[in-house]
Amino acid sequence: MSDGRIGLQLRSLIKKGGELEISLVDVPTPEPAADEVVVRVEAAPINPSDLGLLVGAADISTVKASGTKESPIVTAKVPEAAMRAMAGRLDQPLPVGNEGAGVVIKTGSSDAAKALMGKTVAMIGGAMYAQYRTLKVRECLPLPAGATPADGASVFVNPLTALGMTETMRREGHKALVHTAAASNLGQMLNKICLKDGIGLVNIVRSDEQADILRKLGAKHVVDSSKPSFMEDLTQALVETGATIAFDAIGGGKLAGQILTAMEAAIGKTAKAYSRYGSSVHKQVYIYGSLDTRPVEINRAFGMAWGVGGWLLFPFLMKIGPVEGQKLRERVVSELKTTFASHYTKVVSLQEALDLSNLAVYAKRATGEKFLINPNKG
Amino acid sequence: MSDGRIGLQLRSLIKKGGELEISLVDVPTPEPAADEVVVRVEAAPINPSDLGLLVGAADISTVKASGTKESPIVTAKVPEAAMRAMAGRLDQPLPVGNEGAGVVIKTGSSDAAKALMGKTVAMIGGAMYAQYRTLKVRECLPLPAGATPADGASVFVNPLTALGMTETMRREGHKALVHTAAASNLGQMLNKICLKDGIGLVNIVRSDEQADILRKLGAKHVVDSSKPSFMEDLTQALVETGATIAFDAIGGGKLAGQILTAMEAAIGKTAKAYSRYGSSVHKQVYIYGSLDTRPVEINRAFGMAWGVGGWLLFPFLMKIGPVEGQKLRERVVSELKTTFASHYTKVVSLQEALDLSNLAVYAKRATGEKFLINPNKG
Repeated sequence: MSDGRIGLQLRSLIKKGGELEISLVDVPTPEPAADEVVVRVEAAPINPSDLGLLVGAADISTVKASGTKESPIVTAKVPEAAMRAMAGRLDQPLPVGNEGAGVVIKTGSSDAAKALMGKTVAMIGGAMYAQYRTLKVRECLPLPAGATPADGASVFVNPLTALGMTETMRREGHKALVHTAAASNLGQMLNKICLKDGIGLVNIVRSDEQADILRKLGAKHVVDSSKPSFMEDLTQALVETGATIAFDAIGGGKLAGQILTAMEAAIGKTAKAYSRYGSSVHKQVYIYGSLDTRPVEINRAFGMAWGVGGWLLFPFLMKIGPVEGQKLRERVVSELKTTFASHYTKVVSLQEALDLSNLAVYAKRATGEKFLINPNKG
Repeated sequence: MSDGRIGLQLRSLIKKGGELEISLVDVPTPEPAADEVVVRVEAAPINPSDLGLLVGAADISTVKASGTKESPIVTAKVPEAAMRAMAGRLDQPLPVGNEGAGVVIKTGSSDAAKALMGKTVAMIGGAMYAQYRTLKVRECLPLPAGATPADGASVFVNPLTALGMTETMRREGHKALVHTAAASNLGQMLNKICLKDGIGLVNIVRSDEQADILRKLGAKHVVDSSKPSFMEDLTQALVETGATIAFDAIGGGKLAGQILTAMEAAIGKTAKAYSRYGSSVHKQVYIYGSLDTRPVEINRAFGMAWGVGGWLLFPFLMKIGPVEGQKLRERVVSELKTTFASHYTKVVSLQEALDLSNLAVYAKRATGEKFLINPNKG
């Protein structure tokens, strides 16, 4: 299929009966409109944000393989309690893959489209776990000379999310920030940004190994939530940085409330008079991930000036608008091999992505494990 | 003490040892500065927001009386676990009473102050559980002719809080709202405002009696969280009103999360395509009270466009500024005996407020029970 007219595409389907089915299907590549191009996808990361769509609420321990080597099928059970949240996607085979990179092999008739012919471009817009992808010129970002598709595969989601955090911090009037699950690929980028931009960052990790990863990057404030001294360590780091906003990838459990409590305690160390409603300094936790799917449990021991809410990259980009968004993209491209370099554990084909031994690894969302799909891997 | 030079003032003290002590002390009335007046306080409500300061985190079941009839003392134990939250106020006898009303008996030298001589005024600024209160002209609101101190005692907190809710709804782009503990004095006012202004309001109550109170006021949407059909009833009311913001006086437990879940379900009934992150409509719950002091438990079954946070009247008024705040005050005065009329169960003296049988009633914060203190009751 090297002419790109037909290519394999990964599909994730959750059936009404409560079964997840992941498969590969042949799909014709849409002809490009005037302002569109066809890209041969050569690199697409498996981000935590992709896993939500790829495996949904399925119980990974029930996973089974069928089909053939060329056309594998993965199935798994979705627990009944989780089916309510899946209601909107039942019986629709959905393409997956938020971002990727590849080479433009065909273009529409516009000058902007023609200018991309043969170029290596990064892409955003979904359905990237596919051999070919037709998309608009504005969904492509040409990579600098010498950059491979693998270099540019993760240009959008993690780098823009990390920059979105420091931008949100500034726009909402905070001077430093807290990040949880801080040793992640995203967390490492955020550390590089904060070190470069002189922003105070409190990294919350869950093990000595994760703390080491960050300290090696030069992180100044690393606190371990598995230690008995966690609340004291966190409060001290908050006093030192003045952080009053946090981005939390964990979600469930007590962590968001603990962060707010420690922020209030840190503020209280410099407060002058008793206020029955607590400090008037607004303390914010944005939850952007769900590594822990239990309910968020917020023990309100931090006055009334607080907020907890969801945060996502795309609504943030909508809010700041295309001009500001473009500035962030340009920064990512200019620091592609430094601040925003991604590291992958393994590069797999579409078929290999459906191999149960690989799925067992990337579905764990473990720190330091990151897979890259090359849909045209030979 | 009818010359007003010295008067009784109620004080609430939490001692380091873990004991609450409420007492009455004689305090000299400060001489008014040029822009100040002295008011003989004749009516001050016991609002839920006053109880937080009055009894703090004390365990009301341990309450004891001592002292004399003229100078009673109330003591109670503060559970050790709750002492951390009291740290900021230890060993400081604090005056209590957010708002009140009375008659101006002495003024400073400014024209604005002199103009208030003999007038009945409503007051805001704390320390209202006292016989005399010296305060600034701008903390006073002259009441219309014929209005008694009792009519004007609750002009600020409940009416401005209720108006603050509909104002916040508008300013944050929502078209209807949800209110919990909706049969409260405040909730009844909010119903009158919403009926008058044509705003959709979903009232959440916890009993048939509370539902009846609101239906008699003409409330259109009343749902009972104690009923098995609560989630369906709530979702239906949200579909009918389009409410995407809630003000919650309960705080602890699952209610805030249930409201967000029902909002998302209501939005989903009109959604056209599956979005893996849930709807993009922002859903907000503001917690402004703490009738349930347990942790807030948020089961995130409503996508990523959500927020939960604290809401308080005074920061809201600071945010909208004095001009907009004055408009709200003027509306309250002009509808003092209709929309914003308060009803009291009992009028007590300062000594009677410390009577254990009265304290047992008002400290319960029960719907429909509201006490008024008249510090100059004969």
